[in-house]
Amino acid sequence: MTVSSNPPKTSPILGEALRELKAIFGERVSTREEDLLTYAFDATRQEYPPQAVAWPMNEDEISALMRWANRHHVPIYPRGGGTGFTGGALALNGGVTVSLEKMEALIEIDETNRLVTAQPGIPLGDLKSALQKKGLFYPPDPSSAKTASLGGTLAECAGGLNCVKYGVTKDWVQSIRAVLPNGEITQVGTKARKNVVGYDLLPLLIGSEGTLAIITECTLRLIPYPTRRAAFIALYDKVSEAMTSVQAILMSGVTPSALEFIDRRCLEAANAHIKGADMPLAEAMLLVETDGFEDQRVRDDLNRLQAVCRERGAREIRDSQSEEERMKLWSIRKNLSPAMHAIAPYKTNEDICVPISEISGILDDAYAIGERYQIATLCFGHAGDGNIHVNFMTHVEHDPNVEKAVAELFEATVKRDGSISGEHGIGVTKAPYISLEIGESTRELLAGLKRLFDPNDVLNPGKIAFSPQAI
Amino acid sequence: MTVSSNPPKTSPILGEALRELKAIFGERVSTREEDLLTYAFDATRQEYPPQAVAWPMNEDEISALMRWANRHHVPIYPRGGGTGFTGGALALNGGVTVSLEKMEALIEIDETNRLVTAQPGIPLGDLKSALQKKGLFYPPDPSSAKTASLGGTLAECAGGLNCVKYGVTKDWVQSIRAVLPNGEITQVGTKARKNVVGYDLLPLLIGSEGTLAIITECTLRLIPYPTRRAAFIALYDKVSEAMTSVQAILMSGVTPSALEFIDRRCLEAANAHIKGADMPLAEAMLLVETDGFEDQRVRDDLNRLQAVCRERGAREIRDSQSEEERMKLWSIRKNLSPAMHAIAPYKTNEDICVPISEISGILDDAYAIGERYQIATLCFGHAGDGNIHVNFMTHVEHDPNVEKAVAELFEATVKRDGSISGEHGIGVTKAPYISLEIGESTRELLAGLKRLFDPNDVLNPGKIAFSPQAI
Repeated sequence: MTVSSNPPKTSPILGEALRELKAIFGERVSTREEDLLTYAFDATRQEYPPQAVAWPMNEDEISALMRWANRHHVPIYPRGGGTGFTGGALALNGGVTVSLEKMEALIEIDETNRLVTAQPGIPLGDLKSALQKKGLFYPPDPSSAKTASLGGTLAECAGGLNCVKYGVTKDWVQSIRAVLPNGEITQVGTKARKNVVGYDLLPLLIGSEGTLAIITECTLRLIPYPTRRAAFIALYDKVSEAMTSVQAILMSGVTPSALEFIDRRCLEAANAHIKGADMPLAEAMLLVETDGFEDQRVRDDLNRLQAVCRERGAREIRDSQSEEERMKLWSIRKNLSPAMHAIAPYKTNEDICVPISEISGILDDAYAIGERYQIATLCFGHAGDGNIHVNFMTHVEHDPNVEKAVAELFEATVKRDGSISGEHGIGVTKAPYISLEIGESTRELLAGLKRLFDPNDVLNPGKIAFSPQAI
Repeated sequence: MTVSSNPPKTSPILGEALRELKAIFGERVSTREEDLLTYAFDATRQEYPPQAVAWPMNEDEISALMRWANRHHVPIYPRGGGTGFTGGALALNGGVTVSLEKMEALIEIDETNRLVTAQPGIPLGDLKSALQKKGLFYPPDPSSAKTASLGGTLAECAGGLNCVKYGVTKDWVQSIRAVLPNGEITQVGTKARKNVVGYDLLPLLIGSEGTLAIITECTLRLIPYPTRRAAFIALYDKVSEAMTSVQAILMSGVTPSALEFIDRRCLEAANAHIKGADMPLAEAMLLVETDGFEDQRVRDDLNRLQAVCRERGAREIRDSQSEEERMKLWSIRKNLSPAMHAIAPYKTNEDICVPISEISGILDDAYAIGERYQIATLCFGHAGDGNIHVNFMTHVEHDPNVEKAVAELFEATVKRDGSISGEHGIGVTKAPYISLEIGESTRELLAGLKRLFDPNDVLNPGKIAFSPQAI
């Protein structure tokens, strides 16, 4: 595991400031070392202990905290499940980490309007399960769903496996309540499905990585839960043929609920390190799923997509004959990441996104970069969105060659009219690269937005590289 | 027709300022009275002649114009097809109207990535037709599609008949190029389907009613064109039963491509004033359409939804037996607005939007308000979104009772957790009501956003009520 250890950059919170903090949170604020260490990490495995951790119970406490932060110029770091891949929850500059875990209520399931209202701390998986029991579906489904907090998935605009059919988190948020950096409470959006009143702050706040507001409540749109699913894998001798199939699938009139790509190296890793995987080997594998409400229709859709894959050069197609087989396929797909760690202990996973026509090319680029720097390079991802996870595996921590490889990968991505992050965000880890993709005038505007919301730069400073502390 | 005549508020553009303007546009700028009058109107029928009209050919000219505007403090009003219902294109304070009509190129249809790139001046209908010929579908479809410019539909975040299945304009924009108020050119978004790099400016600019930027090019997402459609009407003795059917349809697992509501008064108006309409009468009618790629499936979907309507109390269901019949239904639906003008010459059409559970209640409110002020009140709209068009018809222009009725309707809408505009925007006509829906802290933030983008308030000032000139 990659672990950077970083001492707090500022002196302890003492005296009047500490007394005020305790007046807001009582027992629910801590400066004990074990708490600071517990909340120092996220999925980046970097370590930045905060100076204090607070556990608010409601938006008024968060509002009071933000006013306190502005008075004392102390950074505030909102934190959900700590599952982010780019360091959004890290306490870069000391300050107070605000864990939303106690604000985890599922407030209302409004079946008539197909809406759910919940607090940010609820684990996404718990929310999805509760909804499924009512026959309702909230599609966003990042791999971390089990432990990621709902609020964190909104802050990062999480994606996942079914975006090709259902879009990303942003597409499902109806309204939010949030505390602004100055402590004001704002309500953005109503319960009306369409709304063109004023500038739309909702998609600006969703995906802003906790730098513009702390979400305290959200209302999400729902659809009926698709009760039927079927899946198949298609094997290809050439990556380019697999990607031609992807294009054809997306024009077939049947939108799959998942359209995943896995390369030969990942299949080999699965067979070597996932018990009972027994995957067939091929240069490229597509994992295709259809969903719906009737067995026959879901099956017809699947057959249609199988025919498309055959016409476009699939060497072999294997149907998942049972629900058990289908679940096994997904289990292997979801265990690719841990399986890779058996190849080499240090993994750098970049979630680049390119137009469909460029997937084949960017994979060539990625493998060539890996070869040049002698880094094992394994790729899989959401082919239906062009969102490919490129994994550089190394035996050395902080391998300078990985840094060079990542920079070259990002340059190649932007050249292919792609984006350096499809779903993980910028946070800390991608901050140095943002200017590859976003021109100066736009960056100035984004920095201005941050200043407008947070003139004292107290809310999650140093993230997305617009603030002065940016690395 | 409601016509307000307003003289320009500022003195003519003369001397050096005029010479500079001519240096940018040559023959493509005019201060002739006939041009100023031609561009003084939009669909609100209010009249605000600008001091000059310019017809740019490219983004560099628009950039030069914005720099000129900041130097001379002259307002700039971007204008598309002039079909807006809330006055977004009106030259409220004199200044220069920028007609985008000469920037009307369809730049590229990228079939592989299902994207189209076009300039803002292209009429939406022309773009949709060109795409349909290639088997591609761009769903947004406001009633004004034939003459509305693409850029205008982005500026207003246009909706239309099929939002219940396909969403609004915002959901289909992949990237834009735009000139900012300071003259800088910005590119927002890439060709990658997923992108979480920096704050998402795209949905902020889409729907900003030409107050934050002038869109000079846009790339839109496409899907395969659904070649099959079928429709039926369901008649109800009670509005509430129709709305219970709407709820049930939305939970049925079949998403209709249109789910429209028409009230008894509209049906009567259609029979009286649309030749050959011959509609059955009922308290409420639903017009339901399904679309897809195979006759049998579209038919199965239709049958399923008909069963849902019957179970929920539909008194009668009439299938459109042929494409001709289906087209006739839509023709009647689309001609409701002109038909109403035969009842009374002055129409005030408000596009409120409420949660589905509140449609029945807001209709009761609207009829009661109409009765109280003795104003004929006819309602129809996009029931699947809760987006209802409430039409107050009067024989007197600027009837003060209509103003009171509108204010009460908006108050009732907000009480029902709805929005005062589902698709027409705020512009000039709804600006006085914005604080009903948006709280002070959020309005301050929106005003701050406007100042950030446009510190001299030169781009479309007076719209959305954030700028000092707001009415």
